[in-house]
Amino acid sequence: MPLNLGIIGAGRIGRVHANTLTTRIASAKVLAIADIFADSAKSAAADYGIPDHTSDPAEVINSGAIDAIVICSSTDTHCRFIIEAARAGKQIFCEKPIAFDLAEIDEALAAVAESGVQLQIGFNRRFDANHARIKSAIDQGEIGTPHTMMVISRDPAPPPIEYIKVSGGLMMDMMIHDFDLCRFLLGEVEELYAIGDVKVDPAIGEADDIDTAKVMLRFKNGAIGTIENSRQAVFGYDQRVEVFGSGGAVSSGNWHPNSVTISDAGSVRRDLPLYFFVERYMDSYVAEMMAFVDAIESGGTVPVVGNDGRVPVLMAMAGMRSIAENRPVRLDEI
Amino acid sequence: MPLNLGIIGAGRIGRVHANTLTTRIASAKVLAIADIFADSAKSAAADYGIPDHTSDPAEVINSGAIDAIVICSSTDTHCRFIIEAARAGKQIFCEKPIAFDLAEIDEALAAVAESGVQLQIGFNRRFDANHARIKSAIDQGEIGTPHTMMVISRDPAPPPIEYIKVSGGLMMDMMIHDFDLCRFLLGEVEELYAIGDVKVDPAIGEADDIDTAKVMLRFKNGAIGTIENSRQAVFGYDQRVEVFGSGGAVSSGNWHPNSVTISDAGSVRRDLPLYFFVERYMDSYVAEMMAFVDAIESGGTVPVVGNDGRVPVLMAMAGMRSIAENRPVRLDEI
Amino acid sequence: MPLNLGIIGAGRIGRVHANTLTTRIASAKVLAIADIFADSAKSAAADYGIPDHTSDPAEVINSGAIDAIVICSSTDTHCRFIIEAARAGKQIFCEKPIAFDLAEIDEALAAVAESGVQLQIGFNRRFDANHARIKSAIDQGEIGTPHTMMVISRDPAPPPIEYIKVSGGLMMDMMIHDFDLCRFLLGEVEELYAIGDVKVDPAIGEADDIDTAKVMLRFKNGAIGTIENSRQAVFGYDQRVEVFGSGGAVSSGNWHPNSVTISDAGSVRRDLPLYFFVERYMDSYVAEMMAFVDAIESGGTVPVVGNDGRVPVLMAMAGMRSIAENRPVRLDEI
Amino acid sequence: MPLNLGIIGAGRIGRVHANTLTTRIASAKVLAIADIFADSAKSAAADYGIPDHTSDPAEVINSGAIDAIVICSSTDTHCRFIIEAARAGKQIFCEKPIAFDLAEIDEALAAVAESGVQLQIGFNRRFDANHARIKSAIDQGEIGTPHTMMVISRDPAPPPIEYIKVSGGLMMDMMIHDFDLCRFLLGEVEELYAIGDVKVDPAIGEADDIDTAKVMLRFKNGAIGTIENSRQAVFGYDQRVEVFGSGGAVSSGNWHPNSVTISDAGSVRRDLPLYFFVERYMDSYVAEMMAFVDAIESGGTVPVVGNDGRVPVLMAMAGMRSIAENRPVRLDEI
Repeated sequence: MPLNLGIIGAGRIGRVHANTLTTRIASAKVLAIADIFADSAKSAAADYGIPDHTSDPAEVINSGAIDAIVICSSTDTHCRFIIEAARAGKQIFCEKPIAFDLAEIDEALAAVAESGVQLQIGFNRRFDANHARIKSAIDQGEIGTPHTMMVISRDPAPPPIEYIKVSGGLMMDMMIHDFDLCRFLLGEVEELYAIGDVKVDPAIGEADDIDTAKVMLRFKNGAIGTIENSRQAVFGYDQRVEVFGSGGAVSSGNWHPNSVTISDAGSVRRDLPLYFFVERYMDSYVAEMMAFVDAIESGGTVPVVGNDGRVPVLMAMAGMRSIAENRPVRLDEI
Repeated sequence: MPLNLGIIGAGRIGRVHANTLTTRIASAKVLAIADIFADSAKSAAADYGIPDHTSDPAEVINSGAIDAIVICSSTDTHCRFIIEAARAGKQIFCEKPIAFDLAEIDEALAAVAESGVQLQIGFNRRFDANHARIKSAIDQGEIGTPHTMMVISRDPAPPPIEYIKVSGGLMMDMMIHDFDLCRFLLGEVEELYAIGDVKVDPAIGEADDIDTAKVMLRFKNGAIGTIENSRQAVFGYDQRVEVFGSGGAVSSGNWHPNSVTISDAGSVRRDLPLYFFVERYMDSYVAEMMAFVDAIESGGTVPVVGNDGRVPVLMAMAGMRSIAENRPVRLDEI
Repeated sequence: MPLNLGIIGAGRIGRVHANTLTTRIASAKVLAIADIFADSAKSAAADYGIPDHTSDPAEVINSGAIDAIVICSSTDTHCRFIIEAARAGKQIFCEKPIAFDLAEIDEALAAVAESGVQLQIGFNRRFDANHARIKSAIDQGEIGTPHTMMVISRDPAPPPIEYIKVSGGLMMDMMIHDFDLCRFLLGEVEELYAIGDVKVDPAIGEADDIDTAKVMLRFKNGAIGTIENSRQAVFGYDQRVEVFGSGGAVSSGNWHPNSVTISDAGSVRRDLPLYFFVERYMDSYVAEMMAFVDAIESGGTVPVVGNDGRVPVLMAMAGMRSIAENRPVRLDEI
Repeated sequence: MPLNLGIIGAGRIGRVHANTLTTRIASAKVLAIADIFADSAKSAAADYGIPDHTSDPAEVINSGAIDAIVICSSTDTHCRFIIEAARAGKQIFCEKPIAFDLAEIDEALAAVAESGVQLQIGFNRRFDANHARIKSAIDQGEIGTPHTMMVISRDPAPPPIEYIKVSGGLMMDMMIHDFDLCRFLLGEVEELYAIGDVKVDPAIGEADDIDTAKVMLRFKNGAIGTIENSRQAVFGYDQRVEVFGSGGAVSSGNWHPNSVTISDAGSVRRDLPLYFFVERYMDSYVAEMMAFVDAIESGGTVPVVGNDGRVPVLMAMAGMRSIAENRPVRLDEI
């Protein structure tokens, strides 16, 4: 018996999930897609062979034929749809970040808990082959006890300023993935210290955001970490992690479109890394959705739960306060 | 208007193409699948949502609703189905090798020519990101005039002896891909010299085949090449190419399941390469089928034509004669 | 006309410099070597063909035949010998760190300034091919304006506890090289924040030192850096640097004893990196000594001057205070 | 007690050995250097602090104070000096190739055998860290039974035509190193097939030589090998070896002047490999000379004996005949 799903939001990520659910997961059926822009919903429905489309998310949420809701709308609407979907008894997949406000998140998580449905947060990178291999190296003791870790995460180019203004800022929009990765790999963080700056584009500063940041983290297990973010690496999407421990180190490199090397009179070179998250992390979007469908169908537990969505938001808040006050900030201060 | 296809052969490669055509190419519709084993056809139809299945290939070939035939049956049936499909006016995709016999191939190609349909041969590796990048490096002059080339192609493990006995032998079954790659990258070959031996499994020798071979090739353009094949690399599928020229060299490396390095007290190591052709070349199977569907739909020319299927068979014959007589053999001797 | 040198200190690094000066630099002549342990001086003299040896450094410093003094004795004696050598009008090469005390350093630098001799500090890593290439990439604009940098520096094993007790601690003994590298690559630092811990060996903690540290640095030019140190990487000496900027990034990898890869049924692996600083940085010890001899002979300026020895000591102090007070510390607070 | 040596030939390689013997091997003393060009002998003596120099090699060979002769003169004089040195009871190191003529070589080896001295041939690459590691991987069973091997050896630029004319040709001058490597790694060769061509410079063809060649070799142990040579790789000296066996493969990569990677908007690149043999193989020149001095001083056997000099010459002859007759040639035909 297939899992019947409805998607809310037909923007870029909504289309990514629509494609995955309609072509890569035989046991999933997408019955409807909603977007407040009726045309977006309509064209996504046509492109992915989805029977129904609507500009009213409530229609999807309340459809009796639908078992699970995939929330891909703008961040400010996440909590509302989570609450509605939970009250309608639907299983829920929600994109990150849940929200920019802890009280709002807590209300949504409470609704989920009360209704007994499951909520999976879209931290897709946990499902990436590299990050998963690093996790397994740690878990299987291949590097002993972790002592330090570092995440390098640089985008190929900043998003439009209009997007930046509503994004919640670099910490909430971009580094939130890295905060999640830190927790995924080494557990909870106790305190962090952040430096942020505007180096890529002054317009980002005028929008009251930063485009470059380094953060130092003290984990509860005693490990020490660093995260580096930049909104622009001219050579492309730079996504690397290293964890160092008593028994060794595990490090990931970037992925390139081919494994070809060209040697000429000037240098030995290879083509730039895969351009951006759609190219680099496509497999992980598929894998997270498979995990969601599997968990719901099998009655298992989804792999990235509500609290996994909440804590990185809190870490982003701590990061912003650390920059503002130029001092280490404990997470329990927030 | 979609392209309506029928598949003949529901074995491993037939299922690969069925999956591609039903999930990855929106404009393709697979209407039927045939296999002389009715159960295979039935289960493939179920798995990929193909409306019709049959144990009689003629039903598919002669269906008025079907525009194109994808031939994935055993090699000895290829020419017969090509001829029947050509006479039925169908566009044809046929797996490699076309046949083990030149006269039979010539008859099939003549039927194709006569009927005016197109025939694409399943040399999928031309569509691989690495090989395509090497080709573009040559074509764009990144390495100047090619002087030498080498192909390393090693399987992770030999196929079952039963398969080997009907495979046509290492040259016809395995090295044929590398012969195609040589032609794809550097054009026609004039002469070759081959050494073959049984090193992996004596049972392969008892089946009158070899499991290890090196071939030296003299190209018509003056370049000198070597191919190395082994039926067993214990570290996995080893697929590398290097072309060296007046302006530099282009070399491909293997693909690994992740780009993670683990350093411990013993070594700095990474996981083995992707295991075998299904893992390594999956994208190229998709790409070749997209190219076929595109060419047919757009009225263009398919990218790997009948003669591209014929010449590698001839090269395999020259290779076998070279081993038998321990001397260089010119292709025009065959 | 050769440059006549005397060496003070016949321990490990004294012998490294003795070997370089006697075998690799034709225009250098080592006339004498002193060590308070007469046997050490004697055996070094024998091993490197040095005519005179003594247990009294003053003899070397005051020898009329000697133009330049190479100070390789224990840190607590550096300033005294610098002052004596300066007063004797000798050119001076002194190992790092100059001293653990700023007042002492300032007195020594004043003596040097007064006498008009030159003083080169033994920050050999500036002469390493990797670090020099990173520097040239920055200087030639290959990566645009630097935004961030990171140094990873891990030893293969901690030194004996007896050494640790007199070493000045991880910051003064080990990270001082990385502080120098930061300044070499990106200029002066304004503020730093450090986390230090004992993870490798509790005995190091009992000796009131740390064995693992991460430091975040704010450069005066606005760049943000991180340094990571560990006293023990079980896979060997780990020495890597990355600088990221508006036009790209430059990153160094480790050096291995060979460039051989072994692929077997378990993994694709290579031998561990070069074991420790003697293996890894030998060429840089030669290069720094050549630079010293060249500068003195040609009347040029030595490449790493007294202030380059002073500032990293100050940075180490700031690092220690940052750990003690868990807050960012400005260098001008010290 | 030091080993007293005399050097014959003060050209490039004579100077390399003079430098090694005078600066890197404490127990070696070079007493004299001879060159038919008196000025060359004189300036080498000055540069390396060698007490005596002469234009008459016989003076060096017959000096009572000298224990061992290092022959670095032109190839046509090697055998004569070997015979004279052997008759004078001197230990002998001789550069490759011994000679271009087997009868001449046999006469020289007979003289060596008769006199009971030792003769080491200058196949320095056996002492290279990469090649030695490949050898140890084979010997320690890390790759099981070797099945195939390949050597890639490309120079950065051809030597002057004047040199080519007296060099004995690509096979005798350049590939001879690779023939030696084949024997070093996998033992004796039974038969080979060669293709040679002029691709780099027509002047090389006019000098009756080739500049590009591929050779296929059948080893006595059943392994199959290939060697590729080019007189010009525009990206620099390309020196790689791969041996593949039942248990895995061992492959060497090139050495670069640094391990730095630069990523910019165009590519991810690194600097070209070390330029040529002086840069790439310097350590192996030192190591072979240390091995020679050690063997003589300790009364041990030198590691590369006369027959190791003879067989590669024979292989070069077989290679030339194979090209001339376009057929595989057995070594016992020569």
